[in-house]
Amino acid sequence: MQRFINKADEVVEDMLKGFVRAHKDLVVATDDSRVIKYKEAPVENKVGVVTGGGSGHKPAFVGYLGKNMVDAVAVGEIFSSPTAMAFFNAFKEADSGRGVACLYGNYAGDNMNVKMAIEMAEADGIEVKTVVANDDVPSAPKDKLEDRRGVAGEVLMWKIGGAMAAKGADLDDVIRVSQKAIDNTRSIGVGLTSCVIPEVGKPNFTIEDGKMEVGIGHHGEPGIEVTNLKTANEVAEIMVDTVLPDLPFEKGDEVVVLVSGLGATPVMELYILYNKMEELLAEKSISIYKPYVGDYFTSLEMMGATLTVMKLDDELKELIDEEADSMGFKQFRG
Amino acid sequence: MQRFINKADEVVEDMLKGFVRAHKDLVVATDDSRVIKYKEAPVENKVGVVTGGGSGHKPAFVGYLGKNMVDAVAVGEIFSSPTAMAFFNAFKEADSGRGVACLYGNYAGDNMNVKMAIEMAEADGIEVKTVVANDDVPSAPKDKLEDRRGVAGEVLMWKIGGAMAAKGADLDDVIRVSQKAIDNTRSIGVGLTSCVIPEVGKPNFTIEDGKMEVGIGHHGEPGIEVTNLKTANEVAEIMVDTVLPDLPFEKGDEVVVLVSGLGATPVMELYILYNKMEELLAEKSISIYKPYVGDYFTSLEMMGATLTVMKLDDELKELIDEEADSMGFKQFRG
Repeated sequence: MQRFINKADEVVEDMLKGFVRAHKDLVVATDDSRVIKYKEAPVENKVGVVTGGGSGHKPAFVGYLGKNMVDAVAVGEIFSSPTAMAFFNAFKEADSGRGVACLYGNYAGDNMNVKMAIEMAEADGIEVKTVVANDDVPSAPKDKLEDRRGVAGEVLMWKIGGAMAAKGADLDDVIRVSQKAIDNTRSIGVGLTSCVIPEVGKPNFTIEDGKMEVGIGHHGEPGIEVTNLKTANEVAEIMVDTVLPDLPFEKGDEVVVLVSGLGATPVMELYILYNKMEELLAEKSISIYKPYVGDYFTSLEMMGATLTVMKLDDELKELIDEEADSMGFKQFRG
Repeated sequence: MQRFINKADEVVEDMLKGFVRAHKDLVVATDDSRVIKYKEAPVENKVGVVTGGGSGHKPAFVGYLGKNMVDAVAVGEIFSSPTAMAFFNAFKEADSGRGVACLYGNYAGDNMNVKMAIEMAEADGIEVKTVVANDDVPSAPKDKLEDRRGVAGEVLMWKIGGAMAAKGADLDDVIRVSQKAIDNTRSIGVGLTSCVIPEVGKPNFTIEDGKMEVGIGHHGEPGIEVTNLKTANEVAEIMVDTVLPDLPFEKGDEVVVLVSGLGATPVMELYILYNKMEELLAEKSISIYKPYVGDYFTSLEMMGATLTVMKLDDELKELIDEEADSMGFKQFRG
């Protein structure tokens, strides 16, 4: 395990200390060592935006704390849900009195802990509503949308929900657009190598050299097919052909495309994939309003990539255009 | 070789196509397929800022094209210098009539090709002056500064030179501050794994599991020592103790710290290193004016990290604070 760590069971703690020190201009620690917040949170008269999840997915989740983005994050151990208490404390740090939009991904542990945290928040007089991201197409059939996992589409959900909250919208409106964002979003991942959880010390799954796993999850959850490793253009085609029919995305649609690496794949290769993806979408007369290419939602040192596509309407376009300032998503207006 | 590529000898071409497509808001292709420029270049009445180098170092080099940064980049094959013609064409794309600052790293191929390109430019009436980055401490002794390689300190040189050019400074002043930036900058790399050049298909060096190479170069150039892999805190100490005495950085100094991953090391681990580095600098009463942590200058899927420290004065502070908009370095003012 070739890593810069101290003790395997202190990775998250050390990382959070360094993260807070490196981004003093954006974030601040709280009384709960597993809750980090935007330094301006709670922002007066603004709906709070909260997320949370396991660690090991940088920039997710703490990397999206910032201006017009997320107000507080509950941090879990590597690939493990944060506790209910951490979610509850994140709600408290984010709430200015106008309620909290908890925008997170569909995983059993997160669902359970968010539910308990909401009960705690209700007892405390904090209104919390949720949107549960489920953009990962290969994780369940279309008639079981509620079983699908949330993956890199969460980044776009935070961007949209964060921008809406920053405009002063009320909780119901922030929830409405965040739900619309994720309802209009579909993703797929392709894995090329495994990764090692520091406390485990060995890979918990394997992908043989020369093979690739289509539909892999962010924690190595099995995909829909293991095939021989194909060319980048063929991989792009498989990804596009899985994602587009599912919504479906159709001729004339305007979309955001987000291509993220899973960690160890050089960003160079993401551009090679994107090059073909843009061609494939153009052939279908789907136009890319904004592309994002980079490491937006990773899985430690897994090699692989994800494709996320979000269909836009005028409201989503306006919100995606808003300025954002966070470690993982920094954008000038427009 | 677990990669998303088409043909190994078309990696750079495919990557550049995708890069230009993904960043239409920032960059544009030119008549030379190995020259990419900032879409506004040449910027009227501004000294042009040019760099170039081998591919495989994303975001370097094309990722620093943009507002208040670099105007044109000459692109080489993976880990190989761009041609003299590419540098010359980059000069032409960047020159608005006020001359060109070519800010690049100290490698034999780049030195030779920049020199030839300058002769071509002179014949063409374009004034070009250079700053050659040599921030990599372990690459040569202090009395042979001219033999040292340029590494991640180049990013800070581009930031400073780019900001100065954007203020309307003349060529001599852009060169002066860029030279001051790199003269005040020291770096070190620690490698944990090798990487594979696509056309070669196998690693051209190896680092055994459980070992680390102190002082490794951006292309796997041998370091000063191979040791057992130490804890993150110990690695941070080795890096700081190599970099600080060399300038030397001293009590009361204000510095920029840039911690970059080499590619496959999860960004999480960079924060673990940074956490200790900030402590170590504080103990020496050196204060960090701005920290940058992330993948700023990589080497394909090498695991490892680099530390870069730049000593500031009032002029450098003002320039580092300037807004910047590029794929690899995006910053709001201040």
